[in-house]
Amino acid sequence: MPHISLPPDLPGIRGAMAFRPETARPLNTLVEILLRGPSTLTPGERELIATYVSSRNCTEYCHNIHGAIAAAHLGGNEAVVKQVKTDFMQADISPKLKALLTIAGKVQQDGKLVTAADVEATRKEGATDLEIHDTVLIAAAFCMYNRYVDGLATAKPDDPAFYRERGVRVARDGYVSVSEEYLSAHAPATR
Amino acid sequence: MPHISLPPDLPGIRGAMAFRPETARPLNTLVEILLRGPSTLTPGERELIATYVSSRNCTEYCHNIHGAIAAAHLGGNEAVVKQVKTDFMQADISPKLKALLTIAGKVQQDGKLVTAADVEATRKEGATDLEIHDTVLIAAAFCMYNRYVDGLATAKPDDPAFYRERGVRVARDGYVSVSEEYLSAHAPATR
Repeated sequence: MPHISLPPDLPGIRGAMAFRPETARPLNTLVEILLRGPSTLTPGERELIATYVSSRNCTEYCHNIHGAIAAAHLGGNEAVVKQVKTDFMQADISPKLKALLTIAGKVQQDGKLVTAADVEATRKEGATDLEIHDTVLIAAAFCMYNRYVDGLATAKPDDPAFYRERGVRVARDGYVSVSEEYLSAHAPATR
Repeated sequence: MPHISLPPDLPGIRGAMAFRPETARPLNTLVEILLRGPSTLTPGERELIATYVSSRNCTEYCHNIHGAIAAAHLGGNEAVVKQVKTDFMQADISPKLKALLTIAGKVQQDGKLVTAADVEATRKEGATDLEIHDTVLIAAAFCMYNRYVDGLATAKPDDPAFYRERGVRVARDGYVSVSEEYLSAHAPATR
């Protein structure tokens, strides 16, 4: 049960966002830019970074939903998502993404663990400063989203079909668009 | 030296924000609402939560600058800021803020550590659901800002006067206002 009174029909981060639409909007804008905005990393690759960090933080709701969104972007490839969560070095992804995931994993623990050699390794695989920046910020941002969801003990459905269906929708319509529905519907009544 | 090419005249998060103004704006909007928006927690109390979390993450730039902003809000009381960083239970702050800082400290480690008893303890001191929500989100957000600053190895000035002067300015003018200056000045040239 959530630690505070959240709308029962909205699991995960959605209940928390409906409770506080003022902060939900910049949170959604940020994730929209980072994961779906113009970038030389594909939306699928960026969702894999978000999924990996959420998995390392053991935040079930987030790694399930972002894993489902990643799979939707990657033509339904759930196997690669699972492989990234368990051992990304063996996954069928680019060497550049593997090098960026190494940085993301360190940021998940502590940003100070990232070394010049880690960064150089991504550059050798063709990573740009902007891709390195965005990897660091995606990893950092999911350390926030994960703690937000976990710290309020928000609900997490067990049914994989829930995440699969929602994943397809978010991959198609985006974060800002799908969240505005429940933000406007729930806002003032629930607090 | 920062891991990517950042404007050398902007230390800490400011260089990273100038590098990527698209993400800087929602990051600034979020911190403005959380730390300075309408709330039953004072700006000084909220800055103490941010300072405490940044201190536990050992992110020098952030705990120095937010400590300075907190002190500016609290009539220049640097002693209470130092006490919150070292042992907040002995600090001259309200019992409610102590109970909220206990939650913030757990969120800094892992949101799943927050218990129903922790939440109940804040309620006994008069905390509302909104104050509990905002404490969790402030703590989560600073786990992001801290990792963003550390993961890019941004510059951190040593001189306490730098933080003190900047702290007074941010406390007076706010995050969005002081950041727009360098965001508009630096944006396209530096990437």
